[in-house]
Amino acid sequence: MTVINGYEQSDRNEKLDILNLPSLEARAKKIIPQGGFGYIVGGAEDDWTLQQNTKAFTHAQIVPKALSNIENPDLSTNVFGIDLKTPVMMAPAAAQGLSHSLGEKATAQGVAAVGALMSQSTYSSTSIADTQAAAPDAPQFFQLYMSKDWDFNNALLDEAMKAGVKGIILTVDATVDGYREQDIINNFQFPIPMANLERFAAGDGKGKGIGEIYAAAAQKISEDDVRRIAEYTKLPVIVKGIESPEDAMRAIGAGAAGIYVSNHGGRELNGGPAAFDTLSAIAKAVNHQVPIIFDSGVRRGSHVFKALASGADLVAFARPVLYGLALGGALGVQSVFEQIDHELEIVMQLAGTKDIEAVKHAPLTHFHYEN
Amino acid sequence: MTVINGYEQSDRNEKLDILNLPSLEARAKKIIPQGGFGYIVGGAEDDWTLQQNTKAFTHAQIVPKALSNIENPDLSTNVFGIDLKTPVMMAPAAAQGLSHSLGEKATAQGVAAVGALMSQSTYSSTSIADTQAAAPDAPQFFQLYMSKDWDFNNALLDEAMKAGVKGIILTVDATVDGYREQDIINNFQFPIPMANLERFAAGDGKGKGIGEIYAAAAQKISEDDVRRIAEYTKLPVIVKGIESPEDAMRAIGAGAAGIYVSNHGGRELNGGPAAFDTLSAIAKAVNHQVPIIFDSGVRRGSHVFKALASGADLVAFARPVLYGLALGGALGVQSVFEQIDHELEIVMQLAGTKDIEAVKHAPLTHFHYEN
Amino acid sequence: MTVINGYEQSDRNEKLDILNLPSLEARAKKIIPQGGFGYIVGGAEDDWTLQQNTKAFTHAQIVPKALSNIENPDLSTNVFGIDLKTPVMMAPAAAQGLSHSLGEKATAQGVAAVGALMSQSTYSSTSIADTQAAAPDAPQFFQLYMSKDWDFNNALLDEAMKAGVKGIILTVDATVDGYREQDIINNFQFPIPMANLERFAAGDGKGKGIGEIYAAAAQKISEDDVRRIAEYTKLPVIVKGIESPEDAMRAIGAGAAGIYVSNHGGRELNGGPAAFDTLSAIAKAVNHQVPIIFDSGVRRGSHVFKALASGADLVAFARPVLYGLALGGALGVQSVFEQIDHELEIVMQLAGTKDIEAVKHAPLTHFHYEN
Amino acid sequence: MTVINGYEQSDRNEKLDILNLPSLEARAKKIIPQGGFGYIVGGAEDDWTLQQNTKAFTHAQIVPKALSNIENPDLSTNVFGIDLKTPVMMAPAAAQGLSHSLGEKATAQGVAAVGALMSQSTYSSTSIADTQAAAPDAPQFFQLYMSKDWDFNNALLDEAMKAGVKGIILTVDATVDGYREQDIINNFQFPIPMANLERFAAGDGKGKGIGEIYAAAAQKISEDDVRRIAEYTKLPVIVKGIESPEDAMRAIGAGAAGIYVSNHGGRELNGGPAAFDTLSAIAKAVNHQVPIIFDSGVRRGSHVFKALASGADLVAFARPVLYGLALGGALGVQSVFEQIDHELEIVMQLAGTKDIEAVKHAPLTHFHYEN
Repeated sequence: MTVINGYEQSDRNEKLDILNLPSLEARAKKIIPQGGFGYIVGGAEDDWTLQQNTKAFTHAQIVPKALSNIENPDLSTNVFGIDLKTPVMMAPAAAQGLSHSLGEKATAQGVAAVGALMSQSTYSSTSIADTQAAAPDAPQFFQLYMSKDWDFNNALLDEAMKAGVKGIILTVDATVDGYREQDIINNFQFPIPMANLERFAAGDGKGKGIGEIYAAAAQKISEDDVRRIAEYTKLPVIVKGIESPEDAMRAIGAGAAGIYVSNHGGRELNGGPAAFDTLSAIAKAVNHQVPIIFDSGVRRGSHVFKALASGADLVAFARPVLYGLALGGALGVQSVFEQIDHELEIVMQLAGTKDIEAVKHAPLTHFHYEN
Repeated sequence: MTVINGYEQSDRNEKLDILNLPSLEARAKKIIPQGGFGYIVGGAEDDWTLQQNTKAFTHAQIVPKALSNIENPDLSTNVFGIDLKTPVMMAPAAAQGLSHSLGEKATAQGVAAVGALMSQSTYSSTSIADTQAAAPDAPQFFQLYMSKDWDFNNALLDEAMKAGVKGIILTVDATVDGYREQDIINNFQFPIPMANLERFAAGDGKGKGIGEIYAAAAQKISEDDVRRIAEYTKLPVIVKGIESPEDAMRAIGAGAAGIYVSNHGGRELNGGPAAFDTLSAIAKAVNHQVPIIFDSGVRRGSHVFKALASGADLVAFARPVLYGLALGGALGVQSVFEQIDHELEIVMQLAGTKDIEAVKHAPLTHFHYEN
Repeated sequence: MTVINGYEQSDRNEKLDILNLPSLEARAKKIIPQGGFGYIVGGAEDDWTLQQNTKAFTHAQIVPKALSNIENPDLSTNVFGIDLKTPVMMAPAAAQGLSHSLGEKATAQGVAAVGALMSQSTYSSTSIADTQAAAPDAPQFFQLYMSKDWDFNNALLDEAMKAGVKGIILTVDATVDGYREQDIINNFQFPIPMANLERFAAGDGKGKGIGEIYAAAAQKISEDDVRRIAEYTKLPVIVKGIESPEDAMRAIGAGAAGIYVSNHGGRELNGGPAAFDTLSAIAKAVNHQVPIIFDSGVRRGSHVFKALASGADLVAFARPVLYGLALGGALGVQSVFEQIDHELEIVMQLAGTKDIEAVKHAPLTHFHYEN
Repeated sequence: MTVINGYEQSDRNEKLDILNLPSLEARAKKIIPQGGFGYIVGGAEDDWTLQQNTKAFTHAQIVPKALSNIENPDLSTNVFGIDLKTPVMMAPAAAQGLSHSLGEKATAQGVAAVGALMSQSTYSSTSIADTQAAAPDAPQFFQLYMSKDWDFNNALLDEAMKAGVKGIILTVDATVDGYREQDIINNFQFPIPMANLERFAAGDGKGKGIGEIYAAAAQKISEDDVRRIAEYTKLPVIVKGIESPEDAMRAIGAGAAGIYVSNHGGRELNGGPAAFDTLSAIAKAVNHQVPIIFDSGVRRGSHVFKALASGADLVAFARPVLYGLALGGALGVQSVFEQIDHELEIVMQLAGTKDIEAVKHAPLTHFHYEN
């Protein structure tokens, strides 16, 4: 265990026996300090949107194709020109030092071990360069929380380009912090420095409250910013936090190379629809002009299947990975991805879909069920 | 603490630490005597409509507008020619002496402190003049429970005009008391005098049972009454308790200057629809001919947003304010409004709506969820 | 207390303090012996249809008519040429000796006291003549469970005609006993003689199991039987247990003078729809050719209102009356009717409906709610 | 009790007092060892599809036909040219030695006693010949889990033909084992030899883990396999595990003599629709070209009725039978069938359907209910 500003970080590195990803939450709660756990697990207000995110996967049902004559389904895919062994990727979760002393470095290693795509957050505990260096040959995206200060933005983007990231995820759905009651209850202050903030301005990001950190963040984000970042980096810019077809088309019009459908895991706007419910209409509008990444509520291989069959090209998740990170470090992260890939493989075989392309064309029914 | 007819009134005056408004109920229950608390919290029959009122906000979902380039959303609005700092107003709740020894006077001060609109009930614990005088420069509406006795009605309206109220809310959905089981269980009798009743007929309103007080109230209320009050006062008359487009149009035809969509917080007719579910059809029919006030079930900033986006111009609430009044007097009331305004501001920023006008044009989805 | 075959019958006769009718179930359970209580409360199989019967009233919602200018709503009505003070009537429940030593005689008195319509069952604990004689001037219907033996049927009808009943309810939805698990668990045998059976064949109906009693009942019931009974008695024949428009029209074609929409309170066929959900389509088909009686699940004044507004002319209930009978005899029965009439009157006033005819034309909304 | 590899098998043979089939689960749990019970009761992942399977029967409701003039409804039917006393049949459940020392032999005897159709699984604890011989004159189907090894497949089919089975059920929805968490929690390994596997390759099937047994199973199953088996056996081939009209038509095109609508009792693909919800569309497409068998979630006579009224010709179930087998051997199995037949008979009488053909034409409503 590593103690930093009184916060006890896990140092574990071991494979995990995982029954299913939902069960990790209770296990992780025992080893992540209360403030950090509350920050990770919590949604906005009363968690309604957060809870619907996962429940909403029951709104679509997988119709298995019988007599499909397939075996050993292939989970590999190529998105944004990147070869991946799985359509499941790591969402750009902040402050992974809350889960583990190695933070994003361990996550990157675990993600690389399964051939998945890593993305790192502006508010990472480890620097862009260090996170990339932890898995030097594996593909990573850098997620940008825009600051009001473009010197800061450009410096981050410079670092990301230097580190060789394959794309920039521009988050647009968190222009102010969601009203997260867990953090208020815990009076949570980030105990762990945020490396990217520290590097830019010594002292920044260390021991600051959530409010202060966000104070430096840009509230105004526009289509111009998408264009500016795309031009500056020449990298694919994926706009994260899209929940309507109209916004998806505006983002593409502004130069977005990808659409990231998400409601930030229910952490920002409470009272919006479950992200999964918004996916198929957006995919229909986007009509394969650019790839679609989806997250929010994904906990099962069958969720990944349903998101792909509803129009996603990649499916991201974070909380279960952060729990795996706490419980087992890089190897724990790897175990989490292996579990969801294992479940996805079973679902693909049972659904009669031989590869990810087949999954994307799989039919779904929409009977109405209660959970 | 002030004791009146054996009833213990709060004397507090302090700002409150508020996690969220629903959590105030349990806190207030500890300090408001059982009979008074039951009167405030209870709905008609088995509380079905009361409970659906709040649940129904999940029937519409906020679709955030990404890349909207806004910051510091502006909550101010102008309704009925009145400049307000927030679209959230105080509903005309009766008998606030049940919550606090200063009754409506403290409420008026707390409401004024946040620049919101106050409305006071015919059955107030403090007189029209005293309530207005508690916050002399702040806008107030007077709510009329019509009596069978027009001398009484005119006397009240005279006082209201003299006090300078900006409008008259005519309640039409409570022509008999709802079947409130809490009051029956508690054998509740009003322990606190009702100032407006006392002034008209000495001894009236003091220590009377709910039934007796309502016995003097008019059951027959017609479009003619709307006309009569509008002509008598020359003030805007807002008809409160509208649940159908047809009734809204009839009220406007009778001279209503505003429509108040409400089911009385579930306190009158049980088995009717959630008020929120009736709002958008009414707003479509009214088509901006007059402003619309909405209440019943509002507990969150996101509820306010959804009501505005469904056609309301002002959104009222009462129970959380009455709890704040008990827990903190005028300052407690102020804290309650600050909390819901704070939540609304976050929701507006996250939804990409720069001001109330933008909220009114914000799209909503209507996916089906269970609560 | 009266003890008969070891079964303890209530002898009470007192007005009841009633909060609401659902709360009577727990009170009655304390004084009705387990076997009798299980027989009364139980539905078929797992009670699914029974439970949906009451829940289904939330499928329609009352839209109050504002500014309706009414007071003191009038509950009286005239159906089948009979003047009644309330549209709520007593359903023909069997074996009321399970609740009280005076059985149907006390029920008839309580029902008469409120000016409601009484109906008595073939399987009554007291005879047709005695039940009618208990309230000689009050209107009663006789309900017929057809036997395979027409001598028995005719004898019963003769007695009913002699007693002066105003109509015959022919039950057609119980041609075999529902699979009532409570009775199986309790190994329930009727401990109380059934007077009508006893009179016809000495020894019959005394101490027999449910199965034996039903063995004598006719399973085959056809449109011819409706015609035969109507011709024999020259009384209005109301066919009870109709759940589809088609069956209603067939019954009318066979001479039915009334349609009784019911699923036998969920006691017969489990897995059918809630009776309330079937009502409006049936009423539309019947189109006022004959009156419609409705029962199954009615517990509130608002339920009565919704049934009337959906096409019923009379609304029946039984279980709450049987509980009131046990708890207070004839006076208890009266209290139960007074309570539901009181609730109905409040609902009528709040809904803006001055009389039963207005209720029948009141609009309902059909928003979707969970209970 | 018989102990085999440390596993305690029931030896009981007695008629059971059964309140209803759902209640058998708790009774059986007390006598079936934990691993075996988990294997029987468990579904895939979090049991969502398993639970919806039974709940979904509430999505359709039985509309009784009044005045139908019927009695003593007839449950007999003829499907695939086989005379049966009931439309309820035994689904081909594996490894019945987990429930009873006599395994499928006892089941076959119990099934025969009620004149129902038996089907036995490839993974039976007793051999094809022995199972048939246990009830030599009763009709049986043999269910095939295809192996990659056609010598094995042909050997099994040869045995089945020799034993005189009336049809072959080809399961196509289990080409890999579902992700059954109960088995993982229990680290379940089959303790009982599987006779058909043993006979083919000595030592096979004994004490193997579920994974190993499935490793030998074919993942690739195609329309060609249907043709091949039909040609080889000249027996009706029923394709089991169909959930869409398209697949049903493809199976028929490949020579299927019957369609078996099922999601394997929720044991394979979780996140698919309830099997019952898929039935009517499939039946409409099949349009009586071949008979339809239905299973998944059937626990009540009313479920059987609803499945028949939705297009099924035979309705299968397994878990309740396996519980009856454990609790009472062949006589327990008989009791389970007698119970569901008894319930079905009551439902048929109450619904006014004189025989199975009438049930198939019975109307259903589709009101929306929560469970």
